Amino acid sequence: MEGFHFKTDIRVRYAEIDVQNVVFNSHYMTYLDIGISDYYRQGLKLDPRELSRQGIFDFVLAKCTLDFKQSAKLDDILHIWCRTVSIGRSSMTTEFVMTRAGETDPILLAEFVYVSINPSTKKSLPVPDVVRNRIEEFEQLA
Amino acid sequence: MEGFHFKTDIRVRYAEIDVQNVVFNSHYMTYLDIGISDYYRQGLKLDPRELSRQGIFDFVLAKCTLDFKQSAKLDDILHIWCRTVSIGRSSMTTEFVMTRAGETDPILLAEFVYVSINPSTKKSLPVPDVVRNRIEEFEQLA
Amino acid sequence: MEGFHFKTDIRVRYAEIDVQNVVFNSHYMTYLDIGISDYYRQGLKLDPRELSRQGIFDFVLAKCTLDFKQSAKLDDILHIWCRTVSIGRSSMTTEFVMTRAGETDPILLAEFVYVSINPSTKKSLPVPDVVRNRIEEFEQLA
Amino acid sequence: MEGFHFKTDIRVRYAEIDVQNVVFNSHYMTYLDIGISDYYRQGLKLDPRELSRQGIFDFVLAKCTLDFKQSAKLDDILHIWCRTVSIGRSSMTTEFVMTRAGETDPILLAEFVYVSINPSTKKSLPVPDVVRNRIEEFEQLA
Repeated sequence: MEGFHFKTDIRVRYAEIDVQNVVFNSHYMTYLDIGISDYYRQGLKLDPRELSRQGIFDFVLAKCTLDFKQSAKLDDILHIWCRTVSIGRSSMTTEFVMTRAGETDPILLAEFVYVSINPSTKKSLPVPDVVRNRIEEFEQLA
Repeated sequence: MEGFHFKTDIRVRYAEIDVQNVVFNSHYMTYLDIGISDYYRQGLKLDPRELSRQGIFDFVLAKCTLDFKQSAKLDDILHIWCRTVSIGRSSMTTEFVMTRAGETDPILLAEFVYVSINPSTKKSLPVPDVVRNRIEEFEQLA
Repeated sequence: MEGFHFKTDIRVRYAEIDVQNVVFNSHYMTYLDIGISDYYRQGLKLDPRELSRQGIFDFVLAKCTLDFKQSAKLDDILHIWCRTVSIGRSSMTTEFVMTRAGETDPILLAEFVYVSINPSTKKSLPVPDVVRNRIEEFEQLA
Repeated sequence: MEGFHFKTDIRVRYAEIDVQNVVFNSHYMTYLDIGISDYYRQGLKLDPRELSRQGIFDFVLAKCTLDFKQSAKLDDILHIWCRTVSIGRSSMTTEFVMTRAGETDPILLAEFVYVSINPSTKKSLPVPDVVRNRIEEFEQLA
């Protein structure tokens, strides 16, 4: 996918299909959560759970937009493309594109705004340099 | 809630809480889905499953925006306020406000755009009059 | 239900229905978890989360048997009957019966064996007297 | 795993972890459902959804026993070993062993009894020869 440096794959499970024979809406949020988790660990080589345990950084979802183009179906292999498009003082904007394996037309386009928080107080926190620098390097944002 | 004629209540389940002790993101989509289902049946007195079985009407989510203000927690009783704000030819725009029982500050604001479809072909379909008229009456849109 | 002093109610959600139009298996476990949670809080008047935070007691599922008699369906109101049938040194055996509101034939019979653990070490622990006495009194086991 | 001819792998998702930092109970049922689905398609080379659409065969869970030995954790890669141990007139008994990748001590042992049903009437049905023969061959039961 043009402009993306990371993707992860998931396979749709029977438990995620509703009576209309398509993925129930809420599971797309879980798929994107897998996408952002893998983006940190496998793409950025940062471990958010460890950063949280050390009190350095955690992030929460502040706002999201999902634009559904098609329905995912049982046993579909889905590619979840993920990139950070901007970093503010304490927020990070991430774009997702979800496609079915072997296809280019998207199933879903999404934009998520995450806020950097202090893991103990849960208050917003400037994005720490360790995270900011790593993302800028990975995404060639700087 | 000013301007809303319908709400439904849900209680947060242990199974929905993540390791940060708050509701995991995807479950908010399930809560809003309960909201819209109850809005049809208890508010509008329409049964979407029955309309679908009769081949008259079904609806799918085309686009949504979620704006998270606070986190819901274990055993919270949540009010899900729901209203249709506009009806186009084949789309309907719904607003949700989620609050914790006894509080007025929202947990979540959301806007969902649903598309009216033919239940058999899954192609978009003008919103049938039975649905359009019922919503306009309920929401005093006309 | 003969021999039971506690029940809680849940309503089946659209998100829990699979393509066969019945509740997907895993959700029955969630329903029973709601049953045991409500049994502690509303029946026994004990708060397991608080007992865990205080380091006194927590419990984990060691073994369970589920015997499915019927399928639950969309919008069913389910009664979850729950009782402790025996307390060992560090284990507690709980029986569940699930029925549809207004019916007596069960949907599901289940037996769960929970083990009392130390919340910090996660090692098994004799069932504390505060819990044992409360259950024996509630169930008239002694 | 001695005596098993099939396994499938899953990775634990963040959405499946509860506040105790372990997999919430109900998700084990989903994992085993993935196990049996993959056993049919990749092991037995049978497609249960297709057999159901053709009106030949479907199966539902009648009874299950789960014996938890350890907790699965975030990002664990789990092996789900699956085999049919007996086939009756209209029932099939399946055993599962779940292990963490690289370990031999089980996380979970389970036995599931499935009943063969007519997909249209949902009534029990003798296990069709196409399924019985395929399982006997695969498991070398005969």
